[in-house]
Amino acid sequence: MPKQGLRYAAKVDLKKEAYDQPQLHNRWHPDIPFCGTIKNNEVVKIQCVDWTGGQIGNNDSADDVRDVDLTRVHYLTGPFEIETAEPGDVLVVEIQDVQPLQEEPWGFTGIFAKDNGGGFLDEHFPKAAKAIWDFEGIHCSSRHIPGVRFAGLIHPGILGCAPSPEILATWNEREGALIKECSHMGRDVALPPLAKNVHVGHGDDKIKEQVGKEGARTIPGRPEHGGNCDIKNLSRGSKVYLPVHVKGAKFSVGDLHFSQGDGEISFCGAIEMAGEITIKFTVMKGGVEHLAMKSPIYIPGPVEPQFGPGRYIYFEGFSVDEKGKQYYLDTTVAYRQTCLRVFEYLRRFGYDDYQIYLLLSCAPVQGHVAGIVDIPNSCTTMGLPMDIFDFDIRPEAKPEKRDLGSCAFVSS
Amino acid sequence: MPKQGLRYAAKVDLKKEAYDQPQLHNRWHPDIPFCGTIKNNEVVKIQCVDWTGGQIGNNDSADDVRDVDLTRVHYLTGPFEIETAEPGDVLVVEIQDVQPLQEEPWGFTGIFAKDNGGGFLDEHFPKAAKAIWDFEGIHCSSRHIPGVRFAGLIHPGILGCAPSPEILATWNEREGALIKECSHMGRDVALPPLAKNVHVGHGDDKIKEQVGKEGARTIPGRPEHGGNCDIKNLSRGSKVYLPVHVKGAKFSVGDLHFSQGDGEISFCGAIEMAGEITIKFTVMKGGVEHLAMKSPIYIPGPVEPQFGPGRYIYFEGFSVDEKGKQYYLDTTVAYRQTCLRVFEYLRRFGYDDYQIYLLLSCAPVQGHVAGIVDIPNSCTTMGLPMDIFDFDIRPEAKPEKRDLGSCAFVSS
Amino acid sequence: MPKQGLRYAAKVDLKKEAYDQPQLHNRWHPDIPFCGTIKNNEVVKIQCVDWTGGQIGNNDSADDVRDVDLTRVHYLTGPFEIETAEPGDVLVVEIQDVQPLQEEPWGFTGIFAKDNGGGFLDEHFPKAAKAIWDFEGIHCSSRHIPGVRFAGLIHPGILGCAPSPEILATWNEREGALIKECSHMGRDVALPPLAKNVHVGHGDDKIKEQVGKEGARTIPGRPEHGGNCDIKNLSRGSKVYLPVHVKGAKFSVGDLHFSQGDGEISFCGAIEMAGEITIKFTVMKGGVEHLAMKSPIYIPGPVEPQFGPGRYIYFEGFSVDEKGKQYYLDTTVAYRQTCLRVFEYLRRFGYDDYQIYLLLSCAPVQGHVAGIVDIPNSCTTMGLPMDIFDFDIRPEAKPEKRDLGSCAFVSS
Amino acid sequence: MPKQGLRYAAKVDLKKEAYDQPQLHNRWHPDIPFCGTIKNNEVVKIQCVDWTGGQIGNNDSADDVRDVDLTRVHYLTGPFEIETAEPGDVLVVEIQDVQPLQEEPWGFTGIFAKDNGGGFLDEHFPKAAKAIWDFEGIHCSSRHIPGVRFAGLIHPGILGCAPSPEILATWNEREGALIKECSHMGRDVALPPLAKNVHVGHGDDKIKEQVGKEGARTIPGRPEHGGNCDIKNLSRGSKVYLPVHVKGAKFSVGDLHFSQGDGEISFCGAIEMAGEITIKFTVMKGGVEHLAMKSPIYIPGPVEPQFGPGRYIYFEGFSVDEKGKQYYLDTTVAYRQTCLRVFEYLRRFGYDDYQIYLLLSCAPVQGHVAGIVDIPNSCTTMGLPMDIFDFDIRPEAKPEKRDLGSCAFVSS
Repeated sequence: MPKQGLRYAAKVDLKKEAYDQPQLHNRWHPDIPFCGTIKNNEVVKIQCVDWTGGQIGNNDSADDVRDVDLTRVHYLTGPFEIETAEPGDVLVVEIQDVQPLQEEPWGFTGIFAKDNGGGFLDEHFPKAAKAIWDFEGIHCSSRHIPGVRFAGLIHPGILGCAPSPEILATWNEREGALIKECSHMGRDVALPPLAKNVHVGHGDDKIKEQVGKEGARTIPGRPEHGGNCDIKNLSRGSKVYLPVHVKGAKFSVGDLHFSQGDGEISFCGAIEMAGEITIKFTVMKGGVEHLAMKSPIYIPGPVEPQFGPGRYIYFEGFSVDEKGKQYYLDTTVAYRQTCLRVFEYLRRFGYDDYQIYLLLSCAPVQGHVAGIVDIPNSCTTMGLPMDIFDFDIRPEAKPEKRDLGSCAFVSS
Repeated sequence: MPKQGLRYAAKVDLKKEAYDQPQLHNRWHPDIPFCGTIKNNEVVKIQCVDWTGGQIGNNDSADDVRDVDLTRVHYLTGPFEIETAEPGDVLVVEIQDVQPLQEEPWGFTGIFAKDNGGGFLDEHFPKAAKAIWDFEGIHCSSRHIPGVRFAGLIHPGILGCAPSPEILATWNEREGALIKECSHMGRDVALPPLAKNVHVGHGDDKIKEQVGKEGARTIPGRPEHGGNCDIKNLSRGSKVYLPVHVKGAKFSVGDLHFSQGDGEISFCGAIEMAGEITIKFTVMKGGVEHLAMKSPIYIPGPVEPQFGPGRYIYFEGFSVDEKGKQYYLDTTVAYRQTCLRVFEYLRRFGYDDYQIYLLLSCAPVQGHVAGIVDIPNSCTTMGLPMDIFDFDIRPEAKPEKRDLGSCAFVSS
Repeated sequence: MPKQGLRYAAKVDLKKEAYDQPQLHNRWHPDIPFCGTIKNNEVVKIQCVDWTGGQIGNNDSADDVRDVDLTRVHYLTGPFEIETAEPGDVLVVEIQDVQPLQEEPWGFTGIFAKDNGGGFLDEHFPKAAKAIWDFEGIHCSSRHIPGVRFAGLIHPGILGCAPSPEILATWNEREGALIKECSHMGRDVALPPLAKNVHVGHGDDKIKEQVGKEGARTIPGRPEHGGNCDIKNLSRGSKVYLPVHVKGAKFSVGDLHFSQGDGEISFCGAIEMAGEITIKFTVMKGGVEHLAMKSPIYIPGPVEPQFGPGRYIYFEGFSVDEKGKQYYLDTTVAYRQTCLRVFEYLRRFGYDDYQIYLLLSCAPVQGHVAGIVDIPNSCTTMGLPMDIFDFDIRPEAKPEKRDLGSCAFVSS
Repeated sequence: MPKQGLRYAAKVDLKKEAYDQPQLHNRWHPDIPFCGTIKNNEVVKIQCVDWTGGQIGNNDSADDVRDVDLTRVHYLTGPFEIETAEPGDVLVVEIQDVQPLQEEPWGFTGIFAKDNGGGFLDEHFPKAAKAIWDFEGIHCSSRHIPGVRFAGLIHPGILGCAPSPEILATWNEREGALIKECSHMGRDVALPPLAKNVHVGHGDDKIKEQVGKEGARTIPGRPEHGGNCDIKNLSRGSKVYLPVHVKGAKFSVGDLHFSQGDGEISFCGAIEMAGEITIKFTVMKGGVEHLAMKSPIYIPGPVEPQFGPGRYIYFEGFSVDEKGKQYYLDTTVAYRQTCLRVFEYLRRFGYDDYQIYLLLSCAPVQGHVAGIVDIPNSCTTMGLPMDIFDFDIRPEAKPEKRDLGSCAFVSS
């Protein structure tokens, strides 16, 4: 039988509040009701709002980024009932395509203010900032970061199946323990359940109340189901293998990215967008045991922007922080240092620090764990592709300070 | 003028003790005397012993790995005087070629015992073990890990210029502080200077005594000069930009690897070998300021084994350890979890844990920092190339338990 | 100003006859009137019908392929006036995206009967045949050729600017001479102008008459403007540099392909489809002289399906035909032999010759001119990617004859 | 048992005449005696002279190229007896490594004079010329073609097993027929057996006489055994499957290339060198029938220089020659036109035509058969990698005429 155009398992309406759309939700909880049903082996399209649910505008001010309401994020589409899926199965999710919405060919990258969200380098760059990206087919460019253009490796930042009650309890317990343990740190180290702005699709008030009390926040990825992994090469043609924890799987997806750099360092760091994703769902019965699976696995698609290995400049960082303090095999410190090395390098060409911060978050930079055993220093590297720049950034090039404009900052 | 065969700036003699060869040394110190002079813009060949100086044999017992004397490592070739190089310059090191020694077409990967060296997973796998690899041109295979074969991305684990006295003092101070701070941990967190087995080339006893007191151990890479970075793609055709800290640069190189996985997780984890490296040296005057350089940078060569992005299985790990404890953005914990996921997966095919540990250390696995901002979980990934196996390891494949022999263990 | 969704410079209606749509035409001639105007530097979307204008159906019979009316092809969308473009300029065409029509996610590959169209191997395989391909995001598969699935490198088979009257005269003269010269061959060697079924958009009868007499057929590509080049990597993100021969350029595009193999050997050999293409047009004033351009040039996009070089089986062919006759550096003979070698190889797995013919036409096979100087033999190669098959086709694999069904043939 | 350094199955002596070395020969004939024996599954090293046997010097005159004696070429190393190989078997040749000789790190590319050898473009560029290339590890550069540098994809131009008497007779018959048929053309179209300078290793005078009468010249590759295929990606890590026609296989190899472009257009067009190749030989019993093999097949190694698809400029050519004559699907004419388009493009930067001719012959250009069915025009493409140039050659770049010196020409 000839193949027809695909059905939409869910659509979104960008003119309506995300909060009012019953096919969206913003917490992980087993009791959020299904928003639709998908057959085993079916292929469907699913539309998604951007992760903030439309809080960020296509304009030249970062006020919206500064004032973003993080109690509302992420808005995910789902949860979907996948027929025949049961706990212990693996849900095989083939991402056949991901696209921006035709009528909205743009996205944004944000730097959250240190006191509202923050990011990997908020000690160094505490202000809010923003870049708008225009999509030009597979490429994108930004009026806020002139001189660069690159092809996106488009992907969903979040996908996963709902936790079982037991897993949810584990999450709350272990993250709660961390919050207690780190109360002296004076910053959020994890986000506990929060009733404010909970959205449970078409769930009733009772469910909303319970999810408000217990529902897991969507910010972190978690080993048991994946979730917010922000993996830059989970793109078109990829297959993800997700453990199923509740009957019907309760699969959700969202947080679409046009492109992201390894680490997504500014937190709102990918090129965030609304869009639609085409997925084939297949249930692998008993897959969790068969694959000895504790966390999701995936196989990327065969199609990636290719620069050639010799077209990257690599930077190195170690477990010694910018004040000269030595850490013991701390790979997070090493990666932060690696990032800072790129700032020092790119500044010479005329970019502002916030432009660089935005760029490293969303451009296809390669972040590698190089060595993790040579005590006391982890060594990480970041590969910066030279070919995304329209001027020569090789070490041999003269680093003339160009006039490279500015990203969007807060007004006043 | 026609080009001739290249001169050797230094050769090694595998039949002699490394300790007795004056072109080798095993500490970083500005006073270790030059072992030779290289002109600016000259291309030379440099031979290197394996990092242990021949302590490990091509046999089927891991006794030598268990008993390795880590006070002697790493034996580096150098330091070389690079003419015209002065502090503030950058030494551009083009790695034109790296090769095993013709008459020694083999290498080894080791797992150190937890109480003598250890490694990234020593809590889980505390025993010593070893795999011998035979080189088959660009490929290698091991009688100790049947069923795999891959092309090496051959590279030096260590290269760098000597520290200045000031930098050396900084190293000793900050690593000393860490040792003090972590004295409760009951394990080595850094290695202070050590007189035992110091080798300073043809330096006299006075120098030896001083280097014994102050000389930096070669185990960690350090931000100021690079050193032991263990970067798997610093291979043929790469260019490295190294800051110069003393007159004449005092460049050293060693710790050659036939192949390594991101992280080099078993510590002696690359395929270690003796070999020779062909380098062109160029001095970039005033390069440190010109490049705003705090740590080395490099541009990889254009030649890498290529599998295609869709030929990797990717595994995920998060900042939650195997006991369920939650950490705050701890990327080291996340990477350890990522590694453990691969063990669980590969075990199903019949590999022993120690074979897997060895394999992940040296095969071309891709270790990425995926997301580092979604509190409290870092997410790291490891891409395992399917095509290095001679059987089908896809999730869809039946994981029959093969008879896959054994790596080398200690004798009784 | 925020970017909006793009405007369509032309749409098509698949329910109407191509012949009746004024934004289409099917000959090259300078007098075919503009169907629309595009600004210099503008980005627009353009819809296209499949090259036959809907003659081929999504069904299991090749009757439509056998009976195809080749006097009507190719239907191109255009010609467009590109503002400011004049003879001597170069029109830079950036292909920002190409997509199938959402509601028609399928395409076809055909083998024309020897006596109606024919193809590269029609002496060997004279019958009509067909395969329907279903698009699955970036991948495609066919019920007529089971066991294969691959990602498309989607591209337009035809794009170009209209010839000037002088160039058109040259074409008619030189192709006419060939037809005369080869009248003994008993087969079409070129296609002269033909009044039958000429379509000149909204041009009037007078124009139609003239184009019927003089208009160049769209089948061959031609050096002066490109046209039907059928270049498989002219895909998303590519930039093509086209010489302009008439005021306003009169740019046309069509013959969209989801995927094609080098050579497009069965003539209707790509995966043919209706679709839409997003293009940015930029006029390079005086570009023909500046670039010393005699034929178009292009730079492919950075995104291609990647298999890794070691995942291809390469076949060789020489200038000796299947009857043992030796030719002098005949690369066409060599390529035909190369193709035949793949037939012999793939047959062993159970494929029918017509399935193989269809497959080699549209799958991403690499056709190379290996050596073209070693008299009397040209040597060409074809690289067949192993990873498009879902069974093992390596030489070491057992070639069990599978039941691989059948492509579509003519009914009785 | 530990692996030792490999044995040499044959060495060469560059100080002796090739003609006097018994492990070399320069014709294909089943009676040339074995020069050594290799076990099934053995790995050996084999040294080779350059294809001319040392006729070309590392200097700045092309006199030696003009005067080259083509009755002596190619000198191959062999033939080797491969134990257990018999007619009908396939000899699997794994190229584990290829290297220049350590003491001779250079090679040459030549353009033969039209009246002594000629080449693909000898009508346009009839003079002799030469470029010497210095090897810099995996890279090479030339004092005769400044401004370019690239990594070699090193490979043997020739490998194959000896023909059986029957196959040899076929070759002589069919090539003889061509010579007769083309006697009007006034140029060599194939090379018949020739007694002059026949070298049959340590064969006696009787054999020499017979080979002089019947032995096939080594210039062309031939379908039945491969031979001089000049395939640029038959490099390190490749596996070639060769049909065996005589007992013991009588395998020979030579004509090593540091790099070659698709087509090897100047005939002596690769970077020719003396060197050594490491091969593992494996006999696949009954392989010819098993693989339905008529010509060799191969699987390239996983390691290639990578530029990324978007780093090539592609040129197009069609079956219309430079005088405007139309040919019928003549792919040879099309490829010649494609080449000429690159000349016109590169000339603008200051290169001399002969430099371009040499460069396109040996640099890693991609030559594709794009379309071979759109009567009357074949379309071929050539992809020129931009990153081998040290200045910007994009169409957008200003083509300043640089002073790019000169290749070597004949002395007055």
